[in-house]
Amino acid sequence: MNHLHKIINKKACVVIVFGCVFSGNVFSQIPLKSWNKTQVKSEIIEFVTRTTDPKNKDYVKIKDRIATFDNDGTLWSEQPFYFQFFFALDQIKKLSSEHPEWKNKQPYKAAIEDDLDSLSKLQSNDLLKIVLSVHSNNNSEKFEQLVKNWMKNSSHPKFKRPYNQLIFQPMLELINYLKENDYKVFIVSGGSVEFIRAWGEETYGIPKNQIIGSSLKGEFRQSNNDNARVAKLAEIDFIDDHKGKPIAIEKFIGRRPVISVGNSDGDLEMMQYTASGKGARLMLYLHHTDSEREWEYDKDSLVGKLDKGLDEAKKSGWSVIDMKKDWKIVYPFNDVEKDTNVKKVQM
Amino acid sequence: MNHLHKIINKKACVVIVFGCVFSGNVFSQIPLKSWNKTQVKSEIIEFVTRTTDPKNKDYVKIKDRIATFDNDGTLWSEQPFYFQFFFALDQIKKLSSEHPEWKNKQPYKAAIEDDLDSLSKLQSNDLLKIVLSVHSNNNSEKFEQLVKNWMKNSSHPKFKRPYNQLIFQPMLELINYLKENDYKVFIVSGGSVEFIRAWGEETYGIPKNQIIGSSLKGEFRQSNNDNARVAKLAEIDFIDDHKGKPIAIEKFIGRRPVISVGNSDGDLEMMQYTASGKGARLMLYLHHTDSEREWEYDKDSLVGKLDKGLDEAKKSGWSVIDMKKDWKIVYPFNDVEKDTNVKKVQM
Repeated sequence: MNHLHKIINKKACVVIVFGCVFSGNVFSQIPLKSWNKTQVKSEIIEFVTRTTDPKNKDYVKIKDRIATFDNDGTLWSEQPFYFQFFFALDQIKKLSSEHPEWKNKQPYKAAIEDDLDSLSKLQSNDLLKIVLSVHSNNNSEKFEQLVKNWMKNSSHPKFKRPYNQLIFQPMLELINYLKENDYKVFIVSGGSVEFIRAWGEETYGIPKNQIIGSSLKGEFRQSNNDNARVAKLAEIDFIDDHKGKPIAIEKFIGRRPVISVGNSDGDLEMMQYTASGKGARLMLYLHHTDSEREWEYDKDSLVGKLDKGLDEAKKSGWSVIDMKKDWKIVYPFNDVEKDTNVKKVQM
Repeated sequence: MNHLHKIINKKACVVIVFGCVFSGNVFSQIPLKSWNKTQVKSEIIEFVTRTTDPKNKDYVKIKDRIATFDNDGTLWSEQPFYFQFFFALDQIKKLSSEHPEWKNKQPYKAAIEDDLDSLSKLQSNDLLKIVLSVHSNNNSEKFEQLVKNWMKNSSHPKFKRPYNQLIFQPMLELINYLKENDYKVFIVSGGSVEFIRAWGEETYGIPKNQIIGSSLKGEFRQSNNDNARVAKLAEIDFIDDHKGKPIAIEKFIGRRPVISVGNSDGDLEMMQYTASGKGARLMLYLHHTDSEREWEYDKDSLVGKLDKGLDEAKKSGWSVIDMKKDWKIVYPFNDVEKDTNVKKVQM
């Protein structure tokens, strides 16, 4: 009986494998359809084809196919401020009634008064203070609900749409293309991990445990048998930016990425770490060159500065995506050909 | 043309889905075959059936199906010392020629002289010193090779076999059974994450990024363009034990487990954290009761002490696996029915 099952099982497996090949490669949608037929698109497709072909010398085993993406400015926009900062500002306003002392105390005062001029001059320490104040003492389930509610009703100052609609359609296609080719895709972001996990899983189709970011210290608390939880303290645990990115990749993934995608100097060490691996590697920098459809900035930008990274990309022959030239559309809602819904991206 | 592709694609998908159901549930091997037909086995199967049945009130969505396993004493043995300690001892001996000062300095002296009596009296700080000395300054690729080479030639003092053969066959079956039912399985261990990742991925079929453990601080280093790496410092980053386990679960997984499996008081907070989640949860404690086939220990053991945990399990009605009573065999090499090879476990 068991033997019979095994035979049937084997046949079923053949059908499945055959079906998958049939579905995945021959008849799947054209990859990267929102990308113009420029050099970068060819480089990406050529690289993925090469590293997934068992006969090619650059073949990469499935377990080693790791791709790491920055988030702010790489998977979604980041102007005029990082979007998490807008979330923090809105929370400060909501919390201000419980904190009368904030009224006359910077940086809270500027946040409460929507004083964008003062806010734009804040040092990173002050920015951090604002972000920390809204995080601490929340357990992650509560915080997730807070972010989700905010996101639904949020409105970007320029586009008047919820922030999670300002994701890059070509990047969604790149993520899906990599996943179809058995690459495991991670987000490695300077933003707070719990902020991104609250909406990123659904929006990008990347499981929470593949989303890595900056974090606050956690504390285990339990006052009775059924309320064990982890509360966040107003104390930095880890900043996942610059050198922090390769360190976090070792800690969370345990493998050197084969593909890394970023847009700022904060991603440079991740790129260098990726490039230093043996065998084929693909480093992709997104260059914001599109003042009309998105923003145009690089070396002098306060947010998402790309200076050293751009120089090293040129010097080392890394691929640079020119948003204006290489992308047919930027956001999913720019896709006029069909009724696009950002929620269609599946895990 | 595109439309035609979509239709064909849809049909192919139906075939695949149908094939998978056919293969995965109806004809897969009997689950947990090395488990005796006792209450614990029924509890596990009943729980998994219930949480994967969309019509059941306890149904758990696939993305929420998280199972966390301790490693030492839960997935493999841990007597007479944690196996990583044997690795560290062997490395100390290998490194001793470069460290003449160790000859007369404890705890190194005891390690070099194989003085098990002194070693057994070491405090955890001294144990840590030994483990740290062999870790530091290695980048993870080098360290992995070191562990792999050691593992291949290692020999457990009692069983005279490499340590990675002292894994529990019934637990391998449990891992596979959960995976077949779309549970994502993580290891959450007090041991060093890089030690476990070096052999655990292959041995248990759990990807490196789903293996969580204690860690040393990492430092990004780069002296020229193509040698960016992360070196480990002799400084603790995180101890993934007791309260550290739920904290690590939040950080790495971002979801509360639905199933947790452990064997010692070091797993108690993970169990409590799991039990405190809303909806159906399964907490499983492995009780080492088998002095003949493995070891018998609990409340008074130096290694893997199970005291408070056992009390709370009884009080809260958690499932307790009685190794002697509930398991037909302990190790894969005990399986005389067939030529068992631990490597057969696939990812």
